[in-house]
Amino acid sequence: MNLKDIGEFGFIKRISRGCLIRPQNVIKAIGDDAAAFLPEPGETILVTTDLLVERIHFLKDATSGFNLGYKALSVNLSDIAAMGGIAREAFISIAVPENCTLDFLEDLYKGMKRLAAEFGVNLLGGDTTRSKTDLIINVSLIGSASEKEILYRNTAQQGDIICSTGFLGDSRAGFHLITNDIKGDSNELKPLLDAHFMPKPYLREGRFLVRQSGVHAAIDVSDGLSSDIGHIAEQSNVGIRLYSEKIPVSDNLEKFCARFDFDPVEYALAGGEDYTLLCTISPDKMDHVAANYVKRFRNPLYQIGEITDSGKMELILSDGQIRSFAPSGWDHFEKI
Amino acid sequence: MNLKDIGEFGFIKRISRGCLIRPQNVIKAIGDDAAAFLPEPGETILVTTDLLVERIHFLKDATSGFNLGYKALSVNLSDIAAMGGIAREAFISIAVPENCTLDFLEDLYKGMKRLAAEFGVNLLGGDTTRSKTDLIINVSLIGSASEKEILYRNTAQQGDIICSTGFLGDSRAGFHLITNDIKGDSNELKPLLDAHFMPKPYLREGRFLVRQSGVHAAIDVSDGLSSDIGHIAEQSNVGIRLYSEKIPVSDNLEKFCARFDFDPVEYALAGGEDYTLLCTISPDKMDHVAANYVKRFRNPLYQIGEITDSGKMELILSDGQIRSFAPSGWDHFEKI
Repeated sequence: MNLKDIGEFGFIKRISRGCLIRPQNVIKAIGDDAAAFLPEPGETILVTTDLLVERIHFLKDATSGFNLGYKALSVNLSDIAAMGGIAREAFISIAVPENCTLDFLEDLYKGMKRLAAEFGVNLLGGDTTRSKTDLIINVSLIGSASEKEILYRNTAQQGDIICSTGFLGDSRAGFHLITNDIKGDSNELKPLLDAHFMPKPYLREGRFLVRQSGVHAAIDVSDGLSSDIGHIAEQSNVGIRLYSEKIPVSDNLEKFCARFDFDPVEYALAGGEDYTLLCTISPDKMDHVAANYVKRFRNPLYQIGEITDSGKMELILSDGQIRSFAPSGWDHFEKI
Repeated sequence: MNLKDIGEFGFIKRISRGCLIRPQNVIKAIGDDAAAFLPEPGETILVTTDLLVERIHFLKDATSGFNLGYKALSVNLSDIAAMGGIAREAFISIAVPENCTLDFLEDLYKGMKRLAAEFGVNLLGGDTTRSKTDLIINVSLIGSASEKEILYRNTAQQGDIICSTGFLGDSRAGFHLITNDIKGDSNELKPLLDAHFMPKPYLREGRFLVRQSGVHAAIDVSDGLSSDIGHIAEQSNVGIRLYSEKIPVSDNLEKFCARFDFDPVEYALAGGEDYTLLCTISPDKMDHVAANYVKRFRNPLYQIGEITDSGKMELILSDGQIRSFAPSGWDHFEKI
């Protein structure tokens, strides 16, 4: 069965169940010309949007509907996380080619709803239409934050310690497995696929960080560490120094790289879609924030480098050599 | 020149100029993980989103970039108009195939910016990526309204007069010209193409109507009169009676239909993409609202029928015969 059997409105009725999980303040959910809700009094509205296109961002035959829906929402949650905000209302536009089954689509909404429920996000509206060739998903996500509790990219300060909330490079390794048709069912490879298909949104961590004194700037790793820390450097008008030995690489990525003869630091630097948060923290507050963080999340806040006044992007290798690096993450229009 | 020559970030820099035309209350525009702005104190947030897909909603060779951008924003403005709201912040996601030129894209943003400037809307963010085949544009639009000044679909009352803010059917006629490769450069045909390519968003009219006593429900005509008035009938649990002679049809559509042997009422009923507002008004307030409307807009508010308790959808023909009608407008998944 596919969409033309039940029609646009039949489909909307079918997937509307379970979309409204936090009805407070919602005045009009799915079903009118626009959704309506009341913002938190005095709070700033945050908005992010991400467009996922078949054959560019995903291969439909290589993913489940559930994973695709999960990821489509997660990458948006990650943007709100990087601002230190709370995620609130999501709007899903979807364009569906004829060969896409209703089962796949229902599974896709299941993936979104699972994550939405975990973080108290309503699926409050959207648009459903046809496509000739590719499945298209656009998520627009609205969040909120108090104006004084927002993390920007352009507020890093010289001397700040650069931190990551999680491992880097796993998602890129998962992508390598998929595109090279390598079975990822071993204990080492499965977590790399999971990192690619179901990235964790660091919303709780972002919210925690924005409330700690001394946390200055943040961004999420969507295009790759080198590229995304580059945005902080450019917008804050500072230099970057990273230490290759401090970049957090999972044991699974180490094993993957050993097996396929890759450099894990390269994977971490040029990878992408990790969706960890990078943040910069004043050195005199670092120990305090790190101790609070590990107490709260039972995971370390990885300190990977520092903000400099050199204007350069430098990587310190394990033997002490200095290598410059360029944003080599994903540019969606780069020549390939 | 196309996008891969200047890259994603080069393109964003290029189109960022002229996006922020109402900087008050904007805390962070394009360039961070999310945009941030302050809502109007005490106001409800309205959100709508529309996805336009090449070969489904438009043919790239048959439209200019300017017209496409204009329309992509206009159809969203129309949704906010139908709620009686003020349009505020727009977010543009775009997926671009390799054969799409930079000129076309810049023209597309020009079309959006022209309309955005007219209605005081900021282009505050978005996502830019590649596509394998089709050009994809998703617009998410945020508006606002006071909670007591919102028009819904489910609040029509028995006896209400059904009104349209403009002509119906012109856009469908324009679509016929395009798909049948008929030159539309005559005085009669050009306005039909304009109605299709550059639909007017009735934002001022919607805002006016929501503030008039006795205006109960509204919707914009995106799928077609029969289909959209059907949404009001279904959601308000009422019947509909339309009078074929009262349905506003332009002289240009009359001439088009005479020439190509179509029925203008059929075009008006089953057409779509007119983006006029349909509203329902208490009969005892009708004359007052109509008089105020014509004074303000120098155009009539067309009274085309009434809300009944029959539960039926009826069309009264010019000879007095009653015909039932069904939503025969666009269902994007209907068998074609």
